Amino acid sequence: MPTSLTDPTAGRKRIVVIGAGFGGVSFCQSFPEGLADITLVDRNNYHLFQPLLYQVATADLSPADIAEPIRTIFDRRRDVTVLMDEVTDINLRNRQVTMRRQTLDYDYLVLAFGARTGYFGNNDWARYAGGLKGIDDALNIRNRVLTAFEEAENCPDPEQVRRLMTFVVVGGGPTGVELAGALGELTRRVLRRDFKNIDTSQARVFLIQGAPRLLPPYHEALSEYARQKLVSLGVDVRVSARVTRVGPQQVELANGKIIEAANIIWCAGVEGHPLARKLGLPTDHAGRLKVEANLRLSGHPEAFAIGDIAALTDAKGREVPGVAPAALQMGAYAAKVIAAELRGRPAPPPFVYFDKGSMATIGRAAAVLEVGKLRLTGFFAWAGWLIVHLAMLVGFNNKISVLTEWIFRYITYRQGARIITTPRTDELVRDAAP
Amino acid sequence: MPTSLTDPTAGRKRIVVIGAGFGGVSFCQSFPEGLADITLVDRNNYHLFQPLLYQVATADLSPADIAEPIRTIFDRRRDVTVLMDEVTDINLRNRQVTMRRQTLDYDYLVLAFGARTGYFGNNDWARYAGGLKGIDDALNIRNRVLTAFEEAENCPDPEQVRRLMTFVVVGGGPTGVELAGALGELTRRVLRRDFKNIDTSQARVFLIQGAPRLLPPYHEALSEYARQKLVSLGVDVRVSARVTRVGPQQVELANGKIIEAANIIWCAGVEGHPLARKLGLPTDHAGRLKVEANLRLSGHPEAFAIGDIAALTDAKGREVPGVAPAALQMGAYAAKVIAAELRGRPAPPPFVYFDKGSMATIGRAAAVLEVGKLRLTGFFAWAGWLIVHLAMLVGFNNKISVLTEWIFRYITYRQGARIITTPRTDELVRDAAP
Repeated sequence: MPTSLTDPTAGRKRIVVIGAGFGGVSFCQSFPEGLADITLVDRNNYHLFQPLLYQVATADLSPADIAEPIRTIFDRRRDVTVLMDEVTDINLRNRQVTMRRQTLDYDYLVLAFGARTGYFGNNDWARYAGGLKGIDDALNIRNRVLTAFEEAENCPDPEQVRRLMTFVVVGGGPTGVELAGALGELTRRVLRRDFKNIDTSQARVFLIQGAPRLLPPYHEALSEYARQKLVSLGVDVRVSARVTRVGPQQVELANGKIIEAANIIWCAGVEGHPLARKLGLPTDHAGRLKVEANLRLSGHPEAFAIGDIAALTDAKGREVPGVAPAALQMGAYAAKVIAAELRGRPAPPPFVYFDKGSMATIGRAAAVLEVGKLRLTGFFAWAGWLIVHLAMLVGFNNKISVLTEWIFRYITYRQGARIITTPRTDELVRDAAP
Repeated sequence: MPTSLTDPTAGRKRIVVIGAGFGGVSFCQSFPEGLADITLVDRNNYHLFQPLLYQVATADLSPADIAEPIRTIFDRRRDVTVLMDEVTDINLRNRQVTMRRQTLDYDYLVLAFGARTGYFGNNDWARYAGGLKGIDDALNIRNRVLTAFEEAENCPDPEQVRRLMTFVVVGGGPTGVELAGALGELTRRVLRRDFKNIDTSQARVFLIQGAPRLLPPYHEALSEYARQKLVSLGVDVRVSARVTRVGPQQVELANGKIIEAANIIWCAGVEGHPLARKLGLPTDHAGRLKVEANLRLSGHPEAFAIGDIAALTDAKGREVPGVAPAALQMGAYAAKVIAAELRGRPAPPPFVYFDKGSMATIGRAAAVLEVGKLRLTGFFAWAGWLIVHLAMLVGFNNKISVLTEWIFRYITYRQGARIITTPRTDELVRDAAP
């Protein structure tokens, strides 16, 4: 664009933000309007509210309930351009981002492309045990879980019925705990009335946790509460249990036990997006980019990494966790740093993660909540979880529609989205073949 | 199962119903409980409320809003077994239905598998102009429409932008009219604020109708009202226009005009499911099964065809149309015939279609409604349309969630499900290649 005195964008710096998750959206929302030209790139057209993704997987919510078009979020920001495209290469030296359809030059770069499911190097396990990071993952799990019961209902082979009605969730962090709890409720309570040949409450849900207890960052009392609640929902919780092999419809543990299950879901690890490794910069064991105290990439002061793709021990010595509040705070911080620089003001002090507390829901009226020294369990923790998640959901329409679903579900014990949109019957059968 | 005196199902007749659309569900709901063993087969696990399918295509509703699990509909009917499976063969002589996973014997057979999109013999057009019969179709259209705007926003070639922003709906019946109206509103009103490089209100929506007017079965005044309303939404309505060729991103009309459009949707015809032709029985030009006055297949008094797959001129000389109310009535009628036979009572008089009226919505507060001699247009017709469709939606939860969406949309001009769940970017580009 030619620079001219009448062009209000003349001479403005160009900021490219890759990824419209919590970090990327927070950066754009925090950045002062009109100070620069921001281009926000994502391969999807929506911002996903990931903390509720497990409810799409368990047929509680529809994808549109937890996704908001990125354009709509920024429809009043003239300085934010939204691009739906896939980044294929980042050239830090030339300051260029290459996408499938075009290449962008930048003055500042904000890497916010998050993490993906990680298998600790056993990438072949991905074929048998999908993760839960995006809407496709969630719909895959939903289709698989519902199809498994449909198959079991008409299956003459009791051993295969048992396999179809066995679910293994690997990973005892918040996602694994929430998913296992929701599966427990789905099988024991919601689906029970629907089937006549099988008793869905005979379904077995395993939760495999490598560490000695669930939800390791929480207080021990909360871990124990979560375990008990899950057990009361029929979940078979195995702690200090390491997975040594995942095959077709099989999980093998370090103690030699083999669990035969048609449905295996991997919530045990995340790793940085492959684009991060391609940069040739220092990464941690999970492939996340090591950033400096102000979230810059070392040697590239114009480039920042925020959210799940950034690895940082903050100025107070705390390792910043890969959770939504951290991504939100990092986005706002990076915006402050760049804005200060553009305005010629002193840089803000190094980034410090402010822990507002953590919470995880386990089932109907059961959750754990920890804020500083305050620890809550049970109904009040659950109510707090509902309120916080509803308040954080982007978009007024989503709030209403999710609230409606939750109220309906609470009253009736029924799930709202129990439909199989892409039957995967054949694949279930094929995977089972030796 | 061995017959015994203590077995309550001993000697009960077996009825197999293929298809859980309006006809099949209505049959099962109408059939007296406990009089026979009914098996209801469908390849999906849900009953689809097809009249609102176009709202999924235009990002108004989510699939789960208009789909209800079949098992849930019949969870209190012990005599109804629901099977999710695909029928591959029907043997009328041996009274057997073969599916992918099992074969069923029957005493009575009810064929209710509906119609699919028909191209008047030009089946190769299906590649470039998808229809709108199932949820997959609707999601495909939604993804294509939204992706087209995403592509246009970043496309440097004005000709390709024009093509991406051109939509052709073929067929001026209720589905075509409703879809064209909804696309008009989507492009002129809803998406306008979202894009900065393109002006979505410059999008062109064509509605191509072969007959001299829209909605042929309606009174002429209503056809004309529908045409005017569509024009006011920016739709380019072409009546007496026959499509002679559909190619990649192209529609050719009989008058030689070629419309270049990245999005072509076929709502012009339906034809019977291929299974119907395989029976070797008389079918009409659209491949629908000709049935006798009591909906039986000729030569097979134990087999019935109902709904869109049945071709019948009823006892009052009226050709039964392929609409939801007709399917509902045929289902209830077939249930009455079989029940009477099982009870040794006289057969009911031949089937007569009772026309409760027709309605179609065109846009915000605009619809046409015709009941006998009563004809309504405008707000009251639209309110009537809303109430009737909401009342007919199966499932209390769906009613609430659809009502919420509609109210929200009416107030805010925003659509609730504007997310692209499977980006089809590449295909759009590939189709455009010469």
